[in-house]
Amino acid sequence: MENKKEAISFEVTHVCKQTGARTGILHTPHGDVKTPMFMPVGTLATVKFLSPEEIKEIGSGVILANTYHCWLRPGEDVVQAAGGLQKFMRYDGPMLTDSGGFQVFSLADSRKIKEEGVYFKSHIDGSPLFLSPEKSIEIQNALGADIIMSFDECPPYPATYEYMKNSVERTLRWAKRGKDAHKNPETQALFGIVQGGEYEDLRKYSAEELVKIGFPGYSIGGTSVGESKETMYKMIDYAVKYLPKESVKYLMGVGSTDAILEGVLRGIDMFDCVLPTRIARHGALMTSEGRVNIKKVQYKKDFTPIDKECDCYACKNYTKAYIHHLYRCNEGLGMRLMSIHNLRYLIRLTEQIREAIEQDRFGDFKDEFFKKMNLNSVDSRGF
Amino acid sequence: MENKKEAISFEVTHVCKQTGARTGILHTPHGDVKTPMFMPVGTLATVKFLSPEEIKEIGSGVILANTYHCWLRPGEDVVQAAGGLQKFMRYDGPMLTDSGGFQVFSLADSRKIKEEGVYFKSHIDGSPLFLSPEKSIEIQNALGADIIMSFDECPPYPATYEYMKNSVERTLRWAKRGKDAHKNPETQALFGIVQGGEYEDLRKYSAEELVKIGFPGYSIGGTSVGESKETMYKMIDYAVKYLPKESVKYLMGVGSTDAILEGVLRGIDMFDCVLPTRIARHGALMTSEGRVNIKKVQYKKDFTPIDKECDCYACKNYTKAYIHHLYRCNEGLGMRLMSIHNLRYLIRLTEQIREAIEQDRFGDFKDEFFKKMNLNSVDSRGF
Repeated sequence: MENKKEAISFEVTHVCKQTGARTGILHTPHGDVKTPMFMPVGTLATVKFLSPEEIKEIGSGVILANTYHCWLRPGEDVVQAAGGLQKFMRYDGPMLTDSGGFQVFSLADSRKIKEEGVYFKSHIDGSPLFLSPEKSIEIQNALGADIIMSFDECPPYPATYEYMKNSVERTLRWAKRGKDAHKNPETQALFGIVQGGEYEDLRKYSAEELVKIGFPGYSIGGTSVGESKETMYKMIDYAVKYLPKESVKYLMGVGSTDAILEGVLRGIDMFDCVLPTRIARHGALMTSEGRVNIKKVQYKKDFTPIDKECDCYACKNYTKAYIHHLYRCNEGLGMRLMSIHNLRYLIRLTEQIREAIEQDRFGDFKDEFFKKMNLNSVDSRGF
Repeated sequence: MENKKEAISFEVTHVCKQTGARTGILHTPHGDVKTPMFMPVGTLATVKFLSPEEIKEIGSGVILANTYHCWLRPGEDVVQAAGGLQKFMRYDGPMLTDSGGFQVFSLADSRKIKEEGVYFKSHIDGSPLFLSPEKSIEIQNALGADIIMSFDECPPYPATYEYMKNSVERTLRWAKRGKDAHKNPETQALFGIVQGGEYEDLRKYSAEELVKIGFPGYSIGGTSVGESKETMYKMIDYAVKYLPKESVKYLMGVGSTDAILEGVLRGIDMFDCVLPTRIARHGALMTSEGRVNIKKVQYKKDFTPIDKECDCYACKNYTKAYIHHLYRCNEGLGMRLMSIHNLRYLIRLTEQIREAIEQDRFGDFKDEFFKKMNLNSVDSRGF
């Protein structure tokens, strides 16, 4: 049996002598992306309010779209008829879809987990729905992203050891079924997802079994679901430890500044999070001097940029006073400018991280950042 | 007594031999603009969802901001401290503010019209407010637009002759008081507004008395408030007839395609309307083949542009299927694309009008447009 050519490949380009953190290049059918990377979320095949040109301008590489949402609207058949997600939304860079698993467990009602898959109800109209490993892969094949995810259970936190063990075992069976159902391994790379909660032996078991099945990349799931930062970092350690060093590693749904730095230190290459765009739409801006809450009256006549260290379109061209006004009036241009800024802030952070790694001073960089931003590595909130 | 230099000047560049319709150039402190022109509305110092670059790209010249809205939020003091509307919103072209009169009569509650001004309540929080000719000009002086408007009563339609006569007389007294209160005639051109409803003698009286007071430009008010198109065209005729031929003429709040064409035929140089952007946000798109209601299920898999004759960013780059999806999901990018398209549609129409006038075939152009779009000149709906 001959291995088909995989859709993606990953090469480590530098390992920081100070910390062991690494930079790399992820080769995808839609171009190369440097790691560590932060991926903006475009839930419904649109990064809310932004044009593809703006997404590119802030330095984005991979954009994430949510399978569950795109399945319900517009429907994967529409996206497929358009020629895939990239053509549909007119983004020419790489894309990634999640499996729908997380949304089924966080958004949908009345879910029933069975061996064959999950029965649940639409968060839009309550209609009955069913997702299985095969169905999730079928949808993701139609959506056509460069990187796709195995359908997994995202278990609650905390969960008993017994619950977690059963969940991990089922998720492994689902991973195998998903791989078997995957139609386009040469154009879409299917990642395995390590689960196991806070239990090291279950994370180990999950990681090792996934590696036996064999995937071109691995995600770490079940984090950022209510556990402390300290516990999350342990979960990352337990997973990374048992995955092949050379494989690309993706920490799902994590995007606070402190967690990105801690993740990179632990060997993570890819991050995504709705946080920067979601808090932007609520007027919370990430800056080099900490969080700016733009709705505060103190910004009414503040004619300085959001962040004078930032090089984004919003900071180069607009004042806090104007953005304060747009925010208060719920104007779409305000949403645009604030989203652009927060995404650029995080993407710029990853650029600085890569530079620090290449200069073998990532440890110093991380310490300085934590000190400057008043973070600590155990239970900080970052942004 | 010496005349101060006016902020703007207007020159007629061509008169159509077929119809008498004219092209011109309006010289403003922020650059020259060709007429006939359509002015996008940026109520709160933002054309909803659009960046200044996008506003420019669609061919906009003058942008209109609403005095009443900017007075309440962010407050004219904020705009003044920023250096005026253009600097505040970062638009480097000419701007125009209305007087607040129309909003007082259409939005505000419990208004009481007195000789000194109008007492009413804020549409935001019901707080008591007062606007007078002096106050309106004071606010507009602070906002700093190139063209500003006299504070007028926008009378109801229909109104009795007696009501209208009293209203016109008071509005004339207000126009004089406004002119006296105006601090910056060399940088801001104050227009007089012709009222008088459907009564020719009152329109005549209003126009002639305004000309006696003397303004660098004239608006026609009290249209598009419920009267038929036929009546509106009469109102325009009654006003234009008694205004100096060489003066620039602005038909306020009118922006349907048929009314623009009929207005140009009658000597109007400037138009504004929230219609193209407002209906865009409700999914109604103006195209060379008539109105497209993007929410219709027939567009779900329609991978053609909104209008294949259109040269806007939305039409050059996106499909109806994608915009249909964005609209259904209430996504901001959809609002952007639809607003860009409708504005470009109307601005492109004014470009075509100017070309037709210069080629002495405006009558043919108008007839062909009405025929193609199934309009008639008496009671059509245009867009």
